Amino acid sequence: MAAAERMVVIGGDAVGMSAASRARRLKKPEELEIVAFERGRFASFSACGIPYWVGGQVGARDDLIARTPEEHRARGIDLRMRTEVTELDVAGRRVRVVERDGDGGEGGGGDGRWVGYDHLVLATGARPVRPPLPGIDAEGVHGVQTLDDGEALIATLEGAEARPGAGAAARSYGDGRRRAVVVGAGYIGVEMAEAFVNRGYHVTVVDKGEQPMSTLDPDMGELVYEAMCSMGIETVRGATVTEILTDERGRARGVATRDAEYPADVVVLGLGVRPETELARAAGLPLGESGGLLTDLAMRVRGQENIWAGGDCAEVLNLVSGRTQHVPLGTHANKHGQVIGSNIGGDYATFPGVVGTAVSKVCDLEIARTGLLERQAAAVGLRFESVVIESTTRAGYYPGTKPMRVKMIAERRSGRLLGVQIVGRENAGKRVDIAAVALHTGLTVEQLTALDLGYAPPFSPVWDPVLVAARKASSVLRT
Amino acid sequence: MAAAERMVVIGGDAVGMSAASRARRLKKPEELEIVAFERGRFASFSACGIPYWVGGQVGARDDLIARTPEEHRARGIDLRMRTEVTELDVAGRRVRVVERDGDGGEGGGGDGRWVGYDHLVLATGARPVRPPLPGIDAEGVHGVQTLDDGEALIATLEGAEARPGAGAAARSYGDGRRRAVVVGAGYIGVEMAEAFVNRGYHVTVVDKGEQPMSTLDPDMGELVYEAMCSMGIETVRGATVTEILTDERGRARGVATRDAEYPADVVVLGLGVRPETELARAAGLPLGESGGLLTDLAMRVRGQENIWAGGDCAEVLNLVSGRTQHVPLGTHANKHGQVIGSNIGGDYATFPGVVGTAVSKVCDLEIARTGLLERQAAAVGLRFESVVIESTTRAGYYPGTKPMRVKMIAERRSGRLLGVQIVGRENAGKRVDIAAVALHTGLTVEQLTALDLGYAPPFSPVWDPVLVAARKASSVLRT
Repeated sequence: MAAAERMVVIGGDAVGMSAASRARRLKKPEELEIVAFERGRFASFSACGIPYWVGGQVGARDDLIARTPEEHRARGIDLRMRTEVTELDVAGRRVRVVERDGDGGEGGGGDGRWVGYDHLVLATGARPVRPPLPGIDAEGVHGVQTLDDGEALIATLEGAEARPGAGAAARSYGDGRRRAVVVGAGYIGVEMAEAFVNRGYHVTVVDKGEQPMSTLDPDMGELVYEAMCSMGIETVRGATVTEILTDERGRARGVATRDAEYPADVVVLGLGVRPETELARAAGLPLGESGGLLTDLAMRVRGQENIWAGGDCAEVLNLVSGRTQHVPLGTHANKHGQVIGSNIGGDYATFPGVVGTAVSKVCDLEIARTGLLERQAAAVGLRFESVVIESTTRAGYYPGTKPMRVKMIAERRSGRLLGVQIVGRENAGKRVDIAAVALHTGLTVEQLTALDLGYAPPFSPVWDPVLVAARKASSVLRT
Repeated sequence: MAAAERMVVIGGDAVGMSAASRARRLKKPEELEIVAFERGRFASFSACGIPYWVGGQVGARDDLIARTPEEHRARGIDLRMRTEVTELDVAGRRVRVVERDGDGGEGGGGDGRWVGYDHLVLATGARPVRPPLPGIDAEGVHGVQTLDDGEALIATLEGAEARPGAGAAARSYGDGRRRAVVVGAGYIGVEMAEAFVNRGYHVTVVDKGEQPMSTLDPDMGELVYEAMCSMGIETVRGATVTEILTDERGRARGVATRDAEYPADVVVLGLGVRPETELARAAGLPLGESGGLLTDLAMRVRGQENIWAGGDCAEVLNLVSGRTQHVPLGTHANKHGQVIGSNIGGDYATFPGVVGTAVSKVCDLEIARTGLLERQAAAVGLRFESVVIESTTRAGYYPGTKPMRVKMIAERRSGRLLGVQIVGRENAGKRVDIAAVALHTGLTVEQLTALDLGYAPPFSPVWDPVLVAARKASSVLRT
């Protein structure tokens, strides 16, 4: 018996499978057939965990898989792996599907076949930035976007580690360590730097920015720079990679900038990602400046009754700036999936937007931000004051207390909190959540000073560092 | 030259000295003379740090002193130690002052002398509950409210530890450990239990409640009970202490309940505190149900133009229940001091109220709460739903991830968040701040589900545990 309606999902990762799972809980199979197409070999995996797998803290690839294709199928979701959607016919409410190998079951081959839908979920994710440099496709140059990427990188590392040849030794500093070059010093870049440190490599991070972590203001990024250098990570700023150097066997042996060469046993690209929206673009669906799909608050593609999008292929509203932007983070993707699945399933949910929160770490240095940077605030016409304070993660006298710095940006006149950046050691980063909730609700820095936060000597100074920053910001705004 | 006005502060700890310091920054000495009277030997110390000093994590008493009397005096605050205020004459705008020894300088003795004021700050703190039990005043029975208490307790411990006599050995379990009994299983009780564990003692905690931590609902308190037992802390519930047992030398040798006796080398009382407001009561100032002073939002005692109160001797408004209550926490006291000092100094500040946040730990078990418990919500007429969820502090696959349980209470119909309780291991507790900010701003649990919180595998699961609880609460409210 055919189901009354069919939901088609393009992309079997966080958004797609969350949406499918949520809809499945709300609608019986006879009410709603759910088909999901994933062009890769894995579904529902944690891309964010790949640096920790490479670094050895996570033991096995399968630890990063939240649910296998078989588990999805057992729950009534017809998930087709290695199956690509090559065309979207909006008027005809159908997608063209091509199977890449025998995994997908019925049909397929050649130009594929058309599959009709009543509800379509675009969960096509993002693709890593890969500049057209000489040598970019050489053996030993890796992205870290998919589990396949992770496996390939680990294979390269294990190969290099098993190879005692003169080439590798010559590339070492004479201390016997292998060498890794990471191109880009954003989240992926710093996390991969940590992974290589944990693996015992000499690490060089090459970045074109004034400071690492362009998601921070430069003054806070400089703290990251200093900390990375003190960890022994060679951190090169203001340097654009012009070429991937290769050896006689075509294997990457380093990267070149205009001014220098950095030898390497392995090169990792951490240059960020762009929305993967070629299907949507070809179908004439609305895209934002980043190329991400534009949706309404229910995650319906703008102007479409029955097409939904979320996660890394969509833009989201930044509640502080009032602009849409591309924020590729797994935590948003999961929320989008829930919202889409609820709405397709006949329930109701919305995703109001983000405030720009992110947290990361390099070894024991924690880096967090929420809201707007100075340049982002200026770009939307806001006038503001910034303050920076030093504090500690626990009471000053409590053992294990660590230094942390908080930058706070507040709007002039209104006093509204606009953003917070944190750089500090263990237990510093998650404090950004205090500011994140405050940004969701439009608190002023004066209101922040009165927040009733958890205090005990092992957890915080008597004035939480975020409140210390709020006091200073409030004081500056009054003068 | 006399100053134009005089500010008199009664109590030289967090509220009093914060108020004095803040006013001093705002007003010159010729505009405002500031005199502070402290009956003890220490000012500006962290009482919250005493358990960690006793436990050995904090090395020295002076680490707990934020600022010495000399430092206060050097900043233009006339702080008189060992000086007690024995009477308050509101109509005459004066207080009677008695010096307890030679430390205070001029005047004094006998019935004391009157000191006039233009602004009076009541910062008299709290006194520990000390039930009139037989043996309560025996040697070896200690409170942990002041640095003097801490010194006396440590002297007792060091004395007992130096005494290899048969008495102590007989009181041990035969494993050579000394024995401590802590009466009361609230914050002080559990923190002192940890202190004794760290000192190598066998610890018994005796509490009259159904579960330890009556600041949690019983179902969450039971988790604390189980964890304490598994740490080897003998935890006795539903037991009221009837007597402190003493030996032939008058030294405490244990405590008795109706059903049992618990031998001890040392007994610590952790039965909570009551507002110290005898002066205020005698002067006819308004007190709440707890005996704490009632103030307006600027921390002015109700009905008084020029008398201010804050910290452990005052009640505060609970923004969730709409009722005033006694919340003796250093973090509030510091904020009150800032507000009072700002207002006396001619600036303007308010303390809107608390939401009932607290965090503590016993060894590696973290315990946190904010908002209302079930019984507190019921007591103010609220109808609610409660949910409990299990989650982890980091991504499930990330090393060092720890279990945590979150209970969330939400108002029926409105969906407004009413309270959160957390019991978990390392890095669980401070997540309560997310809920605390949400309570300040009246978010619903549905709104909570969309919060943009910091996510990366070392910091959180992709759905933060607080959001998991919010999703469940939101779902329950819809059914």
